[in-house]
Amino acid sequence: MCAIVGIINSEHAAKSAYYGLFAMQHRGQEASGISANFEHKISTIKAKGLVTEVFSEEKLNTLKGAMAIGHNRYSTAGKESGNDAQPVAARYALGEISIVHNGNLVNKKEVRESLVKNGAIFQSNMDTENILHLIAKSSAPKLKDRIIEALKEIKGAYCLLIMSRKKVFAVRDAYGVRPLSIGRLKDGGYIVASETCAFDLLGASFVRDVEPGEMIIFEEGKDSFESIKIFESEPRICAFEYIYFARPDSVIEGKSVYEMRKRLGSALANKSCEDTCDTCGNIKAKADLVIPVPDSGVPAALGYAQSANIPFEMAIVRNHYVGRTFIEPTQEIRNLKVKLKLNPMSSVLAGKSIVVIDDSIVRGTTSKRIVEMLRHAGAKEIHMKIAAPQIRYAEVYGIDTPNRDELISAKKTCAQICEYIGADSLEFLSIDELVKALGDERKYSLVSFDGNYFIK
Amino acid sequence: MCAIVGIINSEHAAKSAYYGLFAMQHRGQEASGISANFEHKISTIKAKGLVTEVFSEEKLNTLKGAMAIGHNRYSTAGKESGNDAQPVAARYALGEISIVHNGNLVNKKEVRESLVKNGAIFQSNMDTENILHLIAKSSAPKLKDRIIEALKEIKGAYCLLIMSRKKVFAVRDAYGVRPLSIGRLKDGGYIVASETCAFDLLGASFVRDVEPGEMIIFEEGKDSFESIKIFESEPRICAFEYIYFARPDSVIEGKSVYEMRKRLGSALANKSCEDTCDTCGNIKAKADLVIPVPDSGVPAALGYAQSANIPFEMAIVRNHYVGRTFIEPTQEIRNLKVKLKLNPMSSVLAGKSIVVIDDSIVRGTTSKRIVEMLRHAGAKEIHMKIAAPQIRYAEVYGIDTPNRDELISAKKTCAQICEYIGADSLEFLSIDELVKALGDERKYSLVSFDGNYFIK
Amino acid sequence: MCAIVGIINSEHAAKSAYYGLFAMQHRGQEASGISANFEHKISTIKAKGLVTEVFSEEKLNTLKGAMAIGHNRYSTAGKESGNDAQPVAARYALGEISIVHNGNLVNKKEVRESLVKNGAIFQSNMDTENILHLIAKSSAPKLKDRIIEALKEIKGAYCLLIMSRKKVFAVRDAYGVRPLSIGRLKDGGYIVASETCAFDLLGASFVRDVEPGEMIIFEEGKDSFESIKIFESEPRICAFEYIYFARPDSVIEGKSVYEMRKRLGSALANKSCEDTCDTCGNIKAKADLVIPVPDSGVPAALGYAQSANIPFEMAIVRNHYVGRTFIEPTQEIRNLKVKLKLNPMSSVLAGKSIVVIDDSIVRGTTSKRIVEMLRHAGAKEIHMKIAAPQIRYAEVYGIDTPNRDELISAKKTCAQICEYIGADSLEFLSIDELVKALGDERKYSLVSFDGNYFIK
Amino acid sequence: MCAIVGIINSEHAAKSAYYGLFAMQHRGQEASGISANFEHKISTIKAKGLVTEVFSEEKLNTLKGAMAIGHNRYSTAGKESGNDAQPVAARYALGEISIVHNGNLVNKKEVRESLVKNGAIFQSNMDTENILHLIAKSSAPKLKDRIIEALKEIKGAYCLLIMSRKKVFAVRDAYGVRPLSIGRLKDGGYIVASETCAFDLLGASFVRDVEPGEMIIFEEGKDSFESIKIFESEPRICAFEYIYFARPDSVIEGKSVYEMRKRLGSALANKSCEDTCDTCGNIKAKADLVIPVPDSGVPAALGYAQSANIPFEMAIVRNHYVGRTFIEPTQEIRNLKVKLKLNPMSSVLAGKSIVVIDDSIVRGTTSKRIVEMLRHAGAKEIHMKIAAPQIRYAEVYGIDTPNRDELISAKKTCAQICEYIGADSLEFLSIDELVKALGDERKYSLVSFDGNYFIK
Repeated sequence: MCAIVGIINSEHAAKSAYYGLFAMQHRGQEASGISANFEHKISTIKAKGLVTEVFSEEKLNTLKGAMAIGHNRYSTAGKESGNDAQPVAARYALGEISIVHNGNLVNKKEVRESLVKNGAIFQSNMDTENILHLIAKSSAPKLKDRIIEALKEIKGAYCLLIMSRKKVFAVRDAYGVRPLSIGRLKDGGYIVASETCAFDLLGASFVRDVEPGEMIIFEEGKDSFESIKIFESEPRICAFEYIYFARPDSVIEGKSVYEMRKRLGSALANKSCEDTCDTCGNIKAKADLVIPVPDSGVPAALGYAQSANIPFEMAIVRNHYVGRTFIEPTQEIRNLKVKLKLNPMSSVLAGKSIVVIDDSIVRGTTSKRIVEMLRHAGAKEIHMKIAAPQIRYAEVYGIDTPNRDELISAKKTCAQICEYIGADSLEFLSIDELVKALGDERKYSLVSFDGNYFIK
Repeated sequence: MCAIVGIINSEHAAKSAYYGLFAMQHRGQEASGISANFEHKISTIKAKGLVTEVFSEEKLNTLKGAMAIGHNRYSTAGKESGNDAQPVAARYALGEISIVHNGNLVNKKEVRESLVKNGAIFQSNMDTENILHLIAKSSAPKLKDRIIEALKEIKGAYCLLIMSRKKVFAVRDAYGVRPLSIGRLKDGGYIVASETCAFDLLGASFVRDVEPGEMIIFEEGKDSFESIKIFESEPRICAFEYIYFARPDSVIEGKSVYEMRKRLGSALANKSCEDTCDTCGNIKAKADLVIPVPDSGVPAALGYAQSANIPFEMAIVRNHYVGRTFIEPTQEIRNLKVKLKLNPMSSVLAGKSIVVIDDSIVRGTTSKRIVEMLRHAGAKEIHMKIAAPQIRYAEVYGIDTPNRDELISAKKTCAQICEYIGADSLEFLSIDELVKALGDERKYSLVSFDGNYFIK
Repeated sequence: MCAIVGIINSEHAAKSAYYGLFAMQHRGQEASGISANFEHKISTIKAKGLVTEVFSEEKLNTLKGAMAIGHNRYSTAGKESGNDAQPVAARYALGEISIVHNGNLVNKKEVRESLVKNGAIFQSNMDTENILHLIAKSSAPKLKDRIIEALKEIKGAYCLLIMSRKKVFAVRDAYGVRPLSIGRLKDGGYIVASETCAFDLLGASFVRDVEPGEMIIFEEGKDSFESIKIFESEPRICAFEYIYFARPDSVIEGKSVYEMRKRLGSALANKSCEDTCDTCGNIKAKADLVIPVPDSGVPAALGYAQSANIPFEMAIVRNHYVGRTFIEPTQEIRNLKVKLKLNPMSSVLAGKSIVVIDDSIVRGTTSKRIVEMLRHAGAKEIHMKIAAPQIRYAEVYGIDTPNRDELISAKKTCAQICEYIGADSLEFLSIDELVKALGDERKYSLVSFDGNYFIK
Repeated sequence: MCAIVGIINSEHAAKSAYYGLFAMQHRGQEASGISANFEHKISTIKAKGLVTEVFSEEKLNTLKGAMAIGHNRYSTAGKESGNDAQPVAARYALGEISIVHNGNLVNKKEVRESLVKNGAIFQSNMDTENILHLIAKSSAPKLKDRIIEALKEIKGAYCLLIMSRKKVFAVRDAYGVRPLSIGRLKDGGYIVASETCAFDLLGASFVRDVEPGEMIIFEEGKDSFESIKIFESEPRICAFEYIYFARPDSVIEGKSVYEMRKRLGSALANKSCEDTCDTCGNIKAKADLVIPVPDSGVPAALGYAQSANIPFEMAIVRNHYVGRTFIEPTQEIRNLKVKLKLNPMSSVLAGKSIVVIDDSIVRGTTSKRIVEMLRHAGAKEIHMKIAAPQIRYAEVYGIDTPNRDELISAKKTCAQICEYIGADSLEFLSIDELVKALGDERKYSLVSFDGNYFIK
C-alpha cells in the first residue's frame, strides 16, 4: 500500500504534508518521511515509525519551503527494511530530485539487472531507486521527458511524486490501480494525495483524480497545472481499496468508500445462499443479530443489517491500543494479537444466532480465532459472511498478501474453510457480485480473486 | 479513574497483571507499574507511558513470582506528575508492602496534615502515600487490623490493593463508587481488577464483585479468600462508569456497560422533547439518520436508532492514531485534536437531517467543533442528543473533570448551550431518566449532575 | 563517595549546581539530580546517568530560583539502585525540604528499625531517608533544632546539605571524614561543594572548609552565614581522598591533592626497600624508567621520578572513552576493561627495567593484568610501587571497597601479592610513611589500612 | 581523519572490527558502522554516535561471519551529516559490495560531475559514493580491475577498504598520506587498520604497512595476501598524524608516535629562541616548570623537560567527561568547553615562570583562554611553545581544519599571535625543525604549514 502526499505552493508545505500523512497513517505504519524544497534545495527527514514518532515539532520546522512530498511506508511482512524509508533524495545530472512512490513494479528485477549491467549501484531494495536510475541515465535534456522515458521502461501498479528544484510531477500508472487525487488548499496551493481523507483534515477541496496513465506537473508559483497523457488508460482501480484498505471517509474514483462497503454488505444480504455454500441454510430468516468484525467490517455489517432488516450490534469490542492484524509479521504473534484486540460480549451474544460480517479471509487463522471467541461468548449459531470474494491469488500490485500457499482459499472450498474456522455457515461474495456492487460501468483490479495478472 | 489489577497464586503473575493493565489501558495512559512478589520479596517497575511502553519482555521477566499488583495512571489535567506512578512500595514495621489505588480521598488534606504533624514525610502527591502512612503508624500487630484502622481514618471513593509478603488485600470504599471485581484464572489463581474486560483477555471467569465496604484477603497458596465487612455498605456506583469511562464489554455490578449505554440512547429516543429544550421540535419524526460521536457514543446511538426506528450510520470516522480528547491538557491542543481525530463524511451527511448522539458535554468546545464540521460536511439539520444529564458540578471522587467555572452546564441553560455549539436542537437526559435507564433499584454516584457530595 | 553541591543566593542556581556536579563527576557516575528552590517551592529532577545525560538545557531551565542543591551518585557495586538517586525531596511538618548526602551511616540499621517500629515507611535504601525521618519526627519547632536532634541519633561519616523554604544547611560529621568546602561566587552568592575543583570551574573563590562537627546555615538574601558547632570535632579526613578519589586539582583541608600525591611518590622513592618486601633489591639504582598507571598514578610517579632522579615516561596510554575500573560491577567485565583502557607502549618499554607507580591494589586482578601487559610489551624488569599502604579492611565510611575476603592484602603478604601479580618486586607505603607524607600534624581516617573503625 | 578497519578470516569478525573501532575512537566520534559478510551476504549497521553507542551486544551479534569492515566518522565542522555514515553497501553489476574510506578526494567535484553527466545518482555527500560509482561503471570483468580503473580516475589522500563476496581490498593512495597497517590476529586472521593501537587491543601482531600506491587483496579462507602496486609511490605521510591525530601508542611508518612527539618537544628545547620570536628571552635558563596542555601536549612537554632539564609538572588537569575541542562546531561552544575541560592548579603554578607546551595553534582562541586561566592561577611568566610549525594553510587531505581566514597564523606573525594570546613569549617549530625531528630521510605532507598542495 503505502501513502504518498505532495504539497505545492502552500506555506509550510512540510507541515501540511505531515498532517496529510497523519490522515493516511492506516496505509503504512513502518516508516515515514518528508522532503521539502526551500530555495530550490531539497531537505529530507525519514525514519522508521509512525509519522508522529518520526517528526517532532523541532524537526518538522527544519523542513522549510512551499513544496514538499511525503510517504508512509507499509511494512512488508517478514523482512527488516530499516533503510527502505522514502522519500529517496538524490543528486543527478539535472540537479537535486526527490521521489516517493507506492505500489509495485512487476519488471523490477529485469530493470534492475539491466541497470546494474550498465554500471548503476543500488543502495536499497526499493523500486523507487529503479525509477531514479532510469531518470538519471536518460539523456533527455528535460526532467519531464526523462520521467516519461523512465516510465516507459517500467511495468507495474504505482503512483509517483517527483520533486525537482521547481516542480512536482504526479504520475499514476496506465491502469490507475492505486488512487491519487488532486485537491486545492485554502491558501490556493495544491495537494496530491493517495486518499481524499487527507484533504478533509487540511480543509482542502477536491479538484479531480489524477487519471490512469496521466502525469500532472505542478510548478513553483504557478496557479494551474499541466497534464500529459503518457499511457493509453485502461482504468482498473484495485477493488481492495474499497474492500479493506482505504479509510471509509475517502472518496475513490468518485465513490464513497463507506457507501461501497455498505453496498458489499447489502450484496451479501441479497445473495441467494446456494451460491457458495450449502451449509448456510436460510440465515437471514432466523438470525437474531448482525455484528461486524471491527473496524473494517462495520460498514458492510450496517449494509447487511439494513438490507436484511436484522438488528445491528457492536458485539465485538476492539481495543485500539494495538495495531492492525494484517501487518503483523509472524503467525504466532498474530494469534495472540487477535485476542489482545477483539473481545466479544457475551451479554449481547449469549444464546443468539448471529451473522458476523468481516472484510476478508486471508489465511483463515484470524477468522478461526474469532469464531472460537464468539462461541466462548455464548453465541448459539455463527454465520460468517465475507464482504469480498475468496482470495485465491497473491496480490503483486502493491498489497502485501502472503504467498499463495498460505492463502486458505487457494487450497480449500468455501465449505472446507467453514469447517476449518468452525462456523455454522460461511459465505463469500462472488466476483460478479463484488463488481456489480461496486458498479459494473468500469473495470477493477481483481487479481487476488481471479488471478488475472493484467500487468506483466 | 486509573485501573488496578491484582493476580494471586498464578504462575507469571506479573505477566498476567501486564495483560490485565493492557485491557484496561483506557482507564489511564499516563503511567503504568507492576509490583511482583517473589520469594516474599517485592520488586517494582513503574514509569510514565502506556503499559506497552513501560514494559519490555525483558523487564517483565525480572518480575517473578505468583503474586502481583499493577496500576494504570490516569493523567490529571494540567499538572506534571512524573513521580506519581504506582504501585508505591515501602518497608514499614511489619516488612515490605506495595499498594495501588484508584479513586480519590476527600479528607486527604486533613489526614496528611495530621500525619506530618506527627512526623511523617511525604515524597509524592499521591493518596496512596497517606494510606501507607496510616498503616505504618498503626500499632496493631497484624496488617489486616492496621489496614482496617487506616481505612477508618480516610474518606473517599476508592479501590485499593495491598500486597504484603504473603497476602493481597482488596478493598472497596463503603459506597463502592469505583468498580472492583474478582475473577478466577484458568490455573486456579485469582484476579482482582477494576473492570471485567481484563478477565476476558486472560480467559478468567467472573466470580463476584468486591462489595462496597468489603475487604477481601487472598493468601499465598490458599484456594479460597477471606471476606471482612469493614463498613456498612450504601452502594452508589459512579454513573459515569456506565456513561463514559468503562469499556463497553465490561460488566459492572452485574450490568453490561454496552447494554446500559444502549438504554441511555433509548431513553433519549423516548423522552418528550419539552423536557429540556424548547428548540428541538419533533426530531424523531423527521430525522433521516442517527449518528454517533465515536467511539463512546456508538452504543447509545444504536439504542436511539433502534428505539426511534431511524437508520444508524457511522458517519463520523475516527482516526485511532490519536488519544482521547478528554485527557489532553490545554484548550488549544484539544481543538486541533478534534479535527485530527474525527472526520464527518459528506457523502453520507449532505442534505440530511441528523440526530447526533454523544456521551457528554463538558466544556462545550468539542461539541461546537463537531457541529461545525457536520455543517461543513453538508448536514441540513443537526440535532444533538447527549446520553447523560448536564454536568454542572466538579467530580471529586476520582474522575478528572475541570473546575466548575469551566463546565458549560454550570453556567448555561440547555438552550444557551445549543446556541453556543450551533446545533439546531440539543437535548440531555434528565437525572431521573438516567437513573431509570440504569435501573432505579439502586443508587448511583451522581455528583457531577446533582452536586450531592455524599462523601465529605 | 558521591558528590554534593549547594548554591545559595546566586542567579540560575541550578545551572551553577549543574556545572559544579559536572566538575565533580569523578565522584559518582551512576545517577545525578538537582533540587531548586523557586518562590519557596522546591522542584527536583533526578535520574540515572552522568549529569550531562540527566539534564538537557530544557530540563535545567525548569529548575528556577537562586538556591539549589545537587548530587552525583556513586554506584554501589553489584546492586541495582535505580530508585536511589538524590536529592530526596519531601513534605514534612514544617513544609517542603530537600536533602543530599554523601558518606555512610554506621548505625543505619538500628536507626531504621527504630523508626519503622514507630510507624515510619521507607521507600528507598538511602541513608538520606533515615535523616529525613529523624528530622520529621522531631518535635522541635525550628528546622535547625530538628536537624541537630536528628544528627545526634546518627553515627557515620557524612556530609549533608538540607534545603528548606528559605535556607540551606550544610553539615559535616564530627570527624570530617569527607571534605566539604565553602566558596563565594562572582555574583556574591555562596557555593558549598565536596571538592574545590567545582569552585574553579565556576570562578568561585575559596572561603573556608566546613569544620568537622559544624553546621553552616545559609539564608535567602543574607550576605553572611551562621555557624553552629554541633559536635566536638576530632578531625580525621579520609586518606583515600588524597590517595585516589579527589581530583588532583582540588585542595582538601588546605592541602593540594596533586602535591600530596607527589609526596606519596617521593615517600616511595625514599623508603628503604627492606620495609615491606625482601624481593625488591635496590631498584632505584638500576631502574631505567618510572611510569605511572594513568591517570591517578601520574602525580605519585612524578614525585617518585623527581626524588629518585629516574626518567619519567607516560608509557601506558589510557583510552578515555571508557569509565573507571573501580566502579565496574563484576570481575569478568573488569578484566576486559583493563585491556580496553590501558595500553603499554613497547617502543618505550622494550628491554627496560621499570618502576611502575599505582595508587592502590584492591583485589590484585588489575595489577596482575597490568604486569602481564607490561611483560608482553617487552619490559625486562617490572618493579611495582604502590603509593599507599596495603588495603586490609573494608571501608565503611562511604567508599565502596569490596568485602574483606576479596581484598588481596587481607589474605596475602606483600611477597605473596608480588608473586600473584607477577612483578619482579612490589612495595607499598607503610601507614606511618603515608601519614608522614600527608603531614602528621593531624589525624586521618585509615580504616582500610589499620582496621581502626573509630566510628561505631 | 576517520578510522577504518578490516578483519579477514577471523571468527566473529564484526566483534573484532568493533574493538578495533573502539581503539581508534579518537579518529572520529560522529558516526560508526560495520559491514559483515556472512555466507557471502553483506549486512551493515551504522548510525551516528560513538561505536559503543551505535552497537549493542544484540546488534553486533546479528553481524555474523569471518569478514568485516568498519568505520569511525570524524565530524566535519559546521555541517549536519546524519546520512553520511559508512560503510556504504550497494549492489552493482558483480554483486554486493561494501566500502569504507578515510581521507579526501581533491577532484571529487569533477569526478562527480562527470558521473552524473553519465547518469549516476548520488544519495550522499561522501567520496565513498564516487568510488562506488567508478567501480560500478567500469566494464572490467573482475572487481580487482574495476577498482584499479576507478582509482586511476580519482586524486586525493585516502585509504580504502572494499569488501566483496569473497575478498577484502585494502588500498592506500600513491603518497600514503594516511596510515594503514596490516596485522595478524591470534587465530591466524588478518586485520587492516588505520592505526596499530587497534592491533594491541586485539592482541594482533604487526605484519607491515600497506605501501603508498599499493593494493592488498585478502581472500576468504586464504592464508596469504596478494599485493599489487597500482601507483608509483612517493611517500608523504601526514605530519599531523605524528603531531596531533594518532594515538601516542600507535606506530606509524615504523616510528612510535609517542617518541616522535617527545622529539618535537626536544626540538623546541634545542632551538635558539631568535628563530621565531624576539620576545622570548632566554626562557630555558629561567623557567621553573614545564607543563603540557593535556592530553596531546604531554609527550612533547616530557621531551622538552628532559632536554632542557626543567621540572615537568601536570599542572593543568583535564576533565575527561568532555570530548575533544578540535571537533566542536561553533566558536561559542568551544570557549565554554575549554573551561569545562582544563583546570590549571594554582598550588603548582603560583609565582612560577612556566613553559607551556601545546601541539598546535589553530584559531588562537583556545590558547588565549589557556593563558588567561594560567595567569588567573598565579603563573608569573607564561612562555608558550608549540611543538609544530605555524598552521598557515587549510588542510584538504582529510583533516578538518578551518578555512584559511580563520587560521590565526595565516594572518598574524608569531609576535602578533603572542600578543593576541597574552603570553610572555611564544615559539613554534620551524618546518625544517619539524622535519628534522621526525626524520629527514623521507618526505611528509606539510600542506598546512607550507601550502604545497602536492596532490591537485
